Amino acid sequence: MSQDRLAIHTITTKAWDLPTAVKKYAAANVPGIGVWRQWLDGRPLTESKALLDDHNIKPASLVRGGFFPGLTETERQAALDDNRSALDEAAAIGANQVVLVCGAKPELSLPENRKQITEGIAACIDHAASLGVKLAIEPLHPMYSDCRSAINTIGQCNDIIDQLGDAHIGIAADVYHIWWDPQLEQEIQRAGKRIIGFHVCDWLTPTTDFLNDRGLMGEGCIDIKYIRTLVEAAGFVGPIEVEIFSDRHWARDPDEFLTDIIDAYEKHVLSDSALKPPKH
Amino acid sequence: MSQDRLAIHTITTKAWDLPTAVKKYAAANVPGIGVWRQWLDGRPLTESKALLDDHNIKPASLVRGGFFPGLTETERQAALDDNRSALDEAAAIGANQVVLVCGAKPELSLPENRKQITEGIAACIDHAASLGVKLAIEPLHPMYSDCRSAINTIGQCNDIIDQLGDAHIGIAADVYHIWWDPQLEQEIQRAGKRIIGFHVCDWLTPTTDFLNDRGLMGEGCIDIKYIRTLVEAAGFVGPIEVEIFSDRHWARDPDEFLTDIIDAYEKHVLSDSALKPPKH
Repeated sequence: MSQDRLAIHTITTKAWDLPTAVKKYAAANVPGIGVWRQWLDGRPLTESKALLDDHNIKPASLVRGGFFPGLTETERQAALDDNRSALDEAAAIGANQVVLVCGAKPELSLPENRKQITEGIAACIDHAASLGVKLAIEPLHPMYSDCRSAINTIGQCNDIIDQLGDAHIGIAADVYHIWWDPQLEQEIQRAGKRIIGFHVCDWLTPTTDFLNDRGLMGEGCIDIKYIRTLVEAAGFVGPIEVEIFSDRHWARDPDEFLTDIIDAYEKHVLSDSALKPPKH
Repeated sequence: MSQDRLAIHTITTKAWDLPTAVKKYAAANVPGIGVWRQWLDGRPLTESKALLDDHNIKPASLVRGGFFPGLTETERQAALDDNRSALDEAAAIGANQVVLVCGAKPELSLPENRKQITEGIAACIDHAASLGVKLAIEPLHPMYSDCRSAINTIGQCNDIIDQLGDAHIGIAADVYHIWWDPQLEQEIQRAGKRIIGFHVCDWLTPTTDFLNDRGLMGEGCIDIKYIRTLVEAAGFVGPIEVEIFSDRHWARDPDEFLTDIIDAYEKHVLSDSALKPPKH
């Protein structure tokens, strides 16, 4: 069955709460879900887990932890506490990883932001280990270097993991953030099985909003199949997570959007799985 | 005199045509100018040169050539013709470099865009050599990888110049495009005297427009002085070009904006010239 690796982030079908999303995904034979933490609000974690189990929907990831840099010790400590809570939530719903958007403060220098990020991840390792949940560093596009993440390339993730070890830390590779990188091939190869998450969407031309103008796979210029073959050649065999922030798609009928997601996944992510030169 | 390396791009003071700009810059003791090609329209090149000479304003650069990738041979040939014209214009007004925004077509793969860019630059070398004008490759921020430039890092510029030689090709380093790069230090060092242009502005948080929401130096999070010390340590001694696209500043009184530019240049670009760790 060609959808057996498909997972959808709850934010992608933003109109649906968790009970609705799992019901809709199950009915459409979507076996995986990326659970954003807000979708766990308002009910006990055991109940959210039961919802997933009852519909046979497997959580690919909990989204998201990170945001480690802070201007004060108090702020940094609060971030650590929040990340440990995220790890607890992931364990409670059976997700094997927490996706980290590492954070950045424009008031701090890049080296200071990066130092605080590395220290923050390091401070969460023991808790992650005790739960058997991995910390998945997601490099963010450099257009977010100022205030969302000072970790912007697979290469930087590799550097951090070289330093902290890969027992409890991996990389979540989102095509939206990494597609432009001239060192993509070599750094994915260097990462190997450190890559524990693979997120898909597309880059639109023009892109009109820094956050919420992502495309459905096939609508933009990213050679998603090529990047999939790269991560698979490096050893990745996990779920493929559809993560689309789009005011345009969010305004549509969510059932129709779900149908389009499944169609786009098969056409623009899955087919032509053999490693080959990029299109053209 | 502390302004002796200051140059301003005509687009920065967009409301002023070339005669007005040179008069205003001269009156404010701004000795350099980055001439956008549109500012040469409507009069003979000799007349534009006379305007600069009469006010003792030195052109730091002609902006811009590039946009090499094309979907057809005809389109690629037109780009080459246009780049050769840009080189002619630079020579005519006494500018020693044409800044290249290399281009990208979302319909083409990144490797194909990059191949066409390298071929395009190569095809202009002889003409550049005959005029004594350099081709200054400007790496653009990765948020422009889809349709403005598939050359996004100093590292890529170095790779191209390794391949094509540095006799007639250099690098224009704009802090807006390169500040986030985790390999900035090593690639600027690798570039050395290949860096023939240095452009300044700032990155705003939040940035609300992909093109026209740049900040005046000091308004954003870029450690401009630090990057200046890096390029100077690599051997750069040329003009420092202020290039700001900003609907907000363009809506202001241009005389007041010019005063602020000079003030920001002294405060946030020039002072503390010794190489030191970035701010915290």
